[in-house]
Amino acid sequence: MPKQPVVTPRAQDFPRWYQDVIAKAELADNGPVRGTMVIRPYGWAIWERMQAAMDARIKAAGAENCYLPLFIPESYLSREAEHVEGFSPELAVVTHAGGKDLEEPVVVRPTSETVFGEFMAKWVTSHRDLPLLLNQWANVVRWEMRPRVFLRTSEFLWQEGHTAHATEADASAYARRILHEVYADFMRTELAMPVLAGRKTKRERFAGATNTMTLEAMMGDGKALQMGTSHELGQNFARAFDIGFTDVDQQRQLAWTTSWGTSTRMVGGLIMCHGDDAGLRIPPRLAATQALVTIVKSAPEVDSTAAQLVSELAAAGVRVRLDDRVDTPYGRRAVDAELKGIPVRVEVGPRDLADGQVTLVRRVPGSKEPVRVGEVAQQVVSALAADHQALYDEALQRRDAATVDAGSVDEAVDAAQTGWARLPWKLLGDEGEARIAGQGITVRCLVVPDADVEGGYRVPDTDDVAVEPELTAIVARAY
Amino acid sequence: MPKQPVVTPRAQDFPRWYQDVIAKAELADNGPVRGTMVIRPYGWAIWERMQAAMDARIKAAGAENCYLPLFIPESYLSREAEHVEGFSPELAVVTHAGGKDLEEPVVVRPTSETVFGEFMAKWVTSHRDLPLLLNQWANVVRWEMRPRVFLRTSEFLWQEGHTAHATEADASAYARRILHEVYADFMRTELAMPVLAGRKTKRERFAGATNTMTLEAMMGDGKALQMGTSHELGQNFARAFDIGFTDVDQQRQLAWTTSWGTSTRMVGGLIMCHGDDAGLRIPPRLAATQALVTIVKSAPEVDSTAAQLVSELAAAGVRVRLDDRVDTPYGRRAVDAELKGIPVRVEVGPRDLADGQVTLVRRVPGSKEPVRVGEVAQQVVSALAADHQALYDEALQRRDAATVDAGSVDEAVDAAQTGWARLPWKLLGDEGEARIAGQGITVRCLVVPDADVEGGYRVPDTDDVAVEPELTAIVARAY
Ligand SMILES: [Zn+2]
Ligand SMILES: [Zn+2]
Repeated sequence: MPKQPVVTPRAQDFPRWYQDVIAKAELADNGPVRGTMVIRPYGWAIWERMQAAMDARIKAAGAENCYLPLFIPESYLSREAEHVEGFSPELAVVTHAGGKDLEEPVVVRPTSETVFGEFMAKWVTSHRDLPLLLNQWANVVRWEMRPRVFLRTSEFLWQEGHTAHATEADASAYARRILHEVYADFMRTELAMPVLAGRKTKRERFAGATNTMTLEAMMGDGKALQMGTSHELGQNFARAFDIGFTDVDQQRQLAWTTSWGTSTRMVGGLIMCHGDDAGLRIPPRLAATQALVTIVKSAPEVDSTAAQLVSELAAAGVRVRLDDRVDTPYGRRAVDAELKGIPVRVEVGPRDLADGQVTLVRRVPGSKEPVRVGEVAQQVVSALAADHQALYDEALQRRDAATVDAGSVDEAVDAAQTGWARLPWKLLGDEGEARIAGQGITVRCLVVPDADVEGGYRVPDTDDVAVEPELTAIVARAY
Repeated sequence: MPKQPVVTPRAQDFPRWYQDVIAKAELADNGPVRGTMVIRPYGWAIWERMQAAMDARIKAAGAENCYLPLFIPESYLSREAEHVEGFSPELAVVTHAGGKDLEEPVVVRPTSETVFGEFMAKWVTSHRDLPLLLNQWANVVRWEMRPRVFLRTSEFLWQEGHTAHATEADASAYARRILHEVYADFMRTELAMPVLAGRKTKRERFAGATNTMTLEAMMGDGKALQMGTSHELGQNFARAFDIGFTDVDQQRQLAWTTSWGTSTRMVGGLIMCHGDDAGLRIPPRLAATQALVTIVKSAPEVDSTAAQLVSELAAAGVRVRLDDRVDTPYGRRAVDAELKGIPVRVEVGPRDLADGQVTLVRRVPGSKEPVRVGEVAQQVVSALAADHQALYDEALQRRDAATVDAGSVDEAVDAAQTGWARLPWKLLGDEGEARIAGQGITVRCLVVPDADVEGGYRVPDTDDVAVEPELTAIVARAY
């Protein structure tokens, strides 16, 4: 079937393509308050499956979920001056509640960091209470002047992890464990997204952190998106909130803490990484519906074969749905399934069936081939596995093809117009970084070549070229 | 082991017992803003498992999850006058955001009802779009003057379902399906709570509803708690938001809608229904940790047997954890496990083990008996099943014993001092209902005797004794 231009082509206007896909695939609408979003069932199913896959990994890493309040006394956010400086214009403040003006206004949480600080200080007294490994799934609010659905919204959903440890080494290892075993593994395995794990420069580091580690992905237009971060906070946070413990020698010590977060931004990243001019492409492992059995035209044998295929696919562990909306034209249903990026369709129609066949339509390669009825389940299972891998490989190849080894800052700036640049950190440095910022280009992360690591790079221990002379800066425009 | 008075005995001061259990079982703390709560990992695990069990049933009933924004324009809440009247003093209003005063203040959602109304009107155009079955898991805010953790908090977590149907019969059937197949089944099966399904009187009905159905449970002090409600909204909601559709004859029709909700209140209900003077008792099916294998005193054989039992129990499908905190006195760990209501403990100590035995401690019957090492898994599995049922039976017997058949309003008022009263609705009526309200006693629901229904009563179709002369009022004090 020839692809219809149901969405603006990416090459023509990428931001418009993004908006079109979100509207036509029924992912989300704008909310009635500017900057907020209504996440529709199809979009929510994506987030829900992301949450479940992440949550299982977070629990496997030993962290426990909890829930802190939406409202924070305004005074809490002036406790840590550096912090408020960063958030202040983003705060939404409740001044009126219970039918009267509040004596102390309350802030709608931009993060629960300060409340975690207060309660972690209460909950930790002895070295026996450590490590304390906490996570929260919640909505947070940061007022957004230039909102864009999923990427920058005044309210978004996220998880924030906060942990306290007895030693710096333990905190450091845990922050890395979250980065690699939870975040990177989830993004590569479930989202089929190649992410580069690196270290933020001082300029890009989270306020209060001694080290911010990041996972960066390349979008379809060559820009970067930060998919998640994991921070070592040293003893800064523990000092601000007095998170201390008595050690084995009955001496009081300050804890070492970490924090880490990912959000509904990842949904935007998924769209922009895998989508094409026909709409979304959902990685098969993530897809709530992996296979759609479509009745092209109803007939007794067609209906019974379709029902049988649904059972067989479900029995084979495939998340399958029946599309029997035969009063909607078939072409419209096909376009809708493509827009929604459903990995596989099994089209059952009277003509094919007369030959004992149905048609297997695969969203990722865009292929369409006859399959014998008895072989459908096996073919679908192998198509799902192959197409998940194909999405990953395609994204990786695109990233590699659009990443240039730059020999100078000017070359890097040129390369960042269409993709990423790699250049020695010693060629750029703090000053070079400040200069290219003026052109909307940032250092996404610092990495060190390491052939043993997926992607060929590892996260550096430092941003100091005297210690790690091979530090490489990844430079790009970013969302 | 003799029970220590670690919490205030229920008979002495039930509200104080409730607070003690919440604090000592580490379920929740008060948040920094009055009326808010910090749900600690042990409390959150309860809610998380409630959510999962409910969510599976909601999906099985065909509803899809979505997410609407936290912020609602103030103007939305004056659209439906009757509604604002009810909520107004409970609203929290953001007047300041993005570093300046907002032109139109935004309300922190007390419910997403108005936004559901707006978007359902957009999403429904044809009879093909019906039924539209939506659900949302979210936090909501209703400013609370006399807060009590889990029961009445300014912020709470809930699910709210909103559905639109082509016919009154379809809407009516769906509201009942949610009440019975989702809510009542979840509460009886997973929470081991006997709930009485009934119909609210006009006085207690949700504003805008044509029929409110409820599930009422008896707490340990004889008071009632409303565990969940399911509303038929007739065409009132559809009229207010213009939710219409073209029928098969191309005629425009108004939809028929329902809404239904349950919240973190259920956690409070669980505590007050099953808790005893030693603390919580978590129903085995709900418990995140069903069995705790406790090393009483470490020794090579003890440690290896404990590890082996953990594996065997996990293999038998039991959610099991190892307690090897041997530097904490054993008695303190036992009291903690009782407080937390962990259904079963397997105590492994050197003395028992010399005889090839361990000790099985069951929280519900309070029993403690030796078990041969090779029989642990099988014994634990059957203990969990038996004790879940025992909790249900005990709660049902308590409810039946504390429910009096009253022959007059005065008798009912007396009975409501310590439990529930049943009396013919025609003896009470609207006037009697208004009169007993002055003494803090309400009609929890109306029911009709029906021997074929669990609990011996069914939900009436009407509150009119002319139509259903056997209408019985359940009268009680309530949380
Ligand atoms: Zn106001
Ligand atoms: Zn302010």
